[in-house]
Amino acid sequence: MADEKAFHMTPDEFRKHGHAVVDWIADYTARIESYPVLSRAEPGQVRASLPANPPARGESFDAILGDVEKLIVPGITHWQSPNFFAFFPANASGPAILGDLLSSGLGVQGMLWATSPACTELETHVLDWLVGMLELPPKFLSGSSGGGVIQDTASSASLCALLAARERATNFASNKRGCDGKLVAYTSSQAHSSIEKDVQIAGLGLNNLRLIDVDENFAMRPDVLARQIKSDRDAGLLPCFVCATIGTTSSNAIDPLPEIGRICRENNLWFHVDAAMSGTAALCPEFRHTHRGVELADSYTFNPHKWMFTNFDCNCFYVADRKALIKTLSILPEYLRNKATESGAVFDYRDWQIPLGRRFRALKLWFVIRHYGIEGLQYHVRRHVELAQKFAGWVRNDSRFEIAAPAPLNLVCFRHKGGDEINQKLMDRLNRSGDLYLTHTRLNDRFTLRFCVGQTNTMERHVERAWSRIQQEAM
Amino acid sequence: MADEKAFHMTPDEFRKHGHAVVDWIADYTARIESYPVLSRAEPGQVRASLPANPPARGESFDAILGDVEKLIVPGITHWQSPNFFAFFPANASGPAILGDLLSSGLGVQGMLWATSPACTELETHVLDWLVGMLELPPKFLSGSSGGGVIQDTASSASLCALLAARERATNFASNKRGCDGKLVAYTSSQAHSSIEKDVQIAGLGLNNLRLIDVDENFAMRPDVLARQIKSDRDAGLLPCFVCATIGTTSSNAIDPLPEIGRICRENNLWFHVDAAMSGTAALCPEFRHTHRGVELADSYTFNPHKWMFTNFDCNCFYVADRKALIKTLSILPEYLRNKATESGAVFDYRDWQIPLGRRFRALKLWFVIRHYGIEGLQYHVRRHVELAQKFAGWVRNDSRFEIAAPAPLNLVCFRHKGGDEINQKLMDRLNRSGDLYLTHTRLNDRFTLRFCVGQTNTMERHVERAWSRIQQEAM
Repeated sequence: MADEKAFHMTPDEFRKHGHAVVDWIADYTARIESYPVLSRAEPGQVRASLPANPPARGESFDAILGDVEKLIVPGITHWQSPNFFAFFPANASGPAILGDLLSSGLGVQGMLWATSPACTELETHVLDWLVGMLELPPKFLSGSSGGGVIQDTASSASLCALLAARERATNFASNKRGCDGKLVAYTSSQAHSSIEKDVQIAGLGLNNLRLIDVDENFAMRPDVLARQIKSDRDAGLLPCFVCATIGTTSSNAIDPLPEIGRICRENNLWFHVDAAMSGTAALCPEFRHTHRGVELADSYTFNPHKWMFTNFDCNCFYVADRKALIKTLSILPEYLRNKATESGAVFDYRDWQIPLGRRFRALKLWFVIRHYGIEGLQYHVRRHVELAQKFAGWVRNDSRFEIAAPAPLNLVCFRHKGGDEINQKLMDRLNRSGDLYLTHTRLNDRFTLRFCVGQTNTMERHVERAWSRIQQEAM
Repeated sequence: MADEKAFHMTPDEFRKHGHAVVDWIADYTARIESYPVLSRAEPGQVRASLPANPPARGESFDAILGDVEKLIVPGITHWQSPNFFAFFPANASGPAILGDLLSSGLGVQGMLWATSPACTELETHVLDWLVGMLELPPKFLSGSSGGGVIQDTASSASLCALLAARERATNFASNKRGCDGKLVAYTSSQAHSSIEKDVQIAGLGLNNLRLIDVDENFAMRPDVLARQIKSDRDAGLLPCFVCATIGTTSSNAIDPLPEIGRICRENNLWFHVDAAMSGTAALCPEFRHTHRGVELADSYTFNPHKWMFTNFDCNCFYVADRKALIKTLSILPEYLRNKATESGAVFDYRDWQIPLGRRFRALKLWFVIRHYGIEGLQYHVRRHVELAQKFAGWVRNDSRFEIAAPAPLNLVCFRHKGGDEINQKLMDRLNRSGDLYLTHTRLNDRFTLRFCVGQTNTMERHVERAWSRIQQEAM
């Protein structure tokens, strides 16, 4: 009969295989430019290479790692490639990966303070640091009425904000009685799709989300917002939530926070600010103008897992009134009761999020901030913006192309003047070539290319080659 | 001026520091029994040890890793300790940690098939494997009408199930019009607290969740369920969702799935089964009786991150009718459109979950199944159950103690016969000693100790010593 340690990887085996995996990642990073950025796998190709049935007996680690190279890598779209300019970045870095590895090794649950005090306190601490680093309003500090928490994504953060808004607007009665079809939420027609999903999940209904018109720069029009709120109130509805965006996904538009915030105050609406990618820009004083008006927000969210060298998942979510959030999301069954919770002296972060369980995600963020220092983070954010602005300049100087939206930071929206079909074909050819990966959006109902600079290892030569490939394929 | 690679960790530095972190984890695992299981940190202690401000300049990796040992470890409650018997396990293993490390290194987003085909296809494949491994109904296979997906937690899986139930019951009108206070959900009074949270989030309202009475074994009473559904229908309400549990958090009670499933069919209700920890038991044919009736379920969820040696987060969620789930959660903005999605030949998992972004979590699950093989996983699950049953036998043979609930698998609920205060003090003394960590619940309104065997390295000697310490402290 097998003994009790049978089948487990011993610490010495872990050491050996762990070194091999670390080396594999170092090698992967070093040779990443040799792969086509967008995977060429056909639907079903990866599955067809895998055995139909799971193994009855264990296999060697070398065999498993060998299959990663052979079977998995061909099905990978290389988000960490310096030639990745699609969507938004999801940039990782050495210190983040190693911080996350430690989190896996410690394997703690941070649902309650008591289930690992360091998991909660490091998170609170690092999120307080970031308030200062981004010059966010002091009300988001844990020492004030607010505080920060790590969520998986901005979608979840926005959902939590919407729920707190829903409850505050109904005196916390919706949690008990359910929604009644009267609550109304507002965002711009350019906001992230997760807001639409959130209002559906939260029981408000998509019909009760107002997608406010935007101006010529794709930013929300406060006058339209104000009129819509008034009209909804007059119709007997209950406006509760406005989401403004700093850097929309589509075109990096920046909504006018001061005006929107004023309207929210006047109407007692919860004002949420989604700065998923562009929040990171506030690390640099010269880009903080994008955050003008954030002091009016009830909640704010940005993703270090997009543009701050921290591997997914790591979203930072701040609220000005943590009591409203906690009252909205708190559940205390007997089996989670403990003295620390009852003392009121600690944060139990399971009351700040949708799920109960939570990973020690603050470690990787702490590692990133300490490894780079403020100086290092600022350097790379500046560099990405500088490269994007260079790219925008090249586009402007080529008469075949035009800039399609303001490019305040690291995203450039542009198009070939030849129309939708030419742009679609241009994008497809470029992506099929494997040399780079970029994606599209529609602006003013025209097919528009998006070029986003933000990967950890993207340097000037990558942006130069991308532009040169775009010019070639546009012939 | 700094050059473009400035501040980043080079591949060679990553290799060096990565080996150091792997070694740290191996050493941590080897010496884990030397720590008190429950952290002795006082509220605020960890934060007080951290500098008030973030570093302006980057620090050395050695300094950062040194601080993990010095500042973080004292604030850790050691979930990976073999002397951890609290809550439910969150057992990790070498292959899981290394699979997750690879996921961090690849750093891909799996929101769409196209954004990394391997991320989606390996997930579908491994979740199909698990249908066979647990002998779940074939309708959960991706080749049928259903399919499986990895979620962060069972809380989120149950929320997705509830939302799909809500939409199916209203012909997908709630997503548009919002909730109207008429939808009703059902679970037992012993179900996980996340169900209460889910009905609040989804806009049904806590008043519309019926906590059905349980029998003397803490299992849901189907007769009470049937009567309550009828009474709600008669009152003009709209019953939509029942959640049954295989292995409640409080006492590991197993609801009678066949009877509950029949009632759900008769009333056209979505039948969700939460087997968060105990699902893993179905790996062993002799424990599959716990899953009798699961073929009637519309959805099913279990957590490899609890009892299947896979580090958090890794919840497996299955539905019989994936179209209902996708129709509930799908949003398609222009910037996510792509040919593969439009072909209909692929799964885009962002339509199966709350958030948009998603990590490559299937890697660690694939690593675990291949490393252990079915044989290895079965061996350890059997061993944990055997050890829990031995423990239950010792409790039964000590006249000072009594068993408080049936112990069908790896959780034993018991108490000292001396009353609540004695049990509370006994638990506090044991936990303060650092020798083991166990938690409590209330059953029939009596303070009850829970002893859950499921950590990766828990062996007979740990369970023996735990019992011996309990006996000592009970003197």
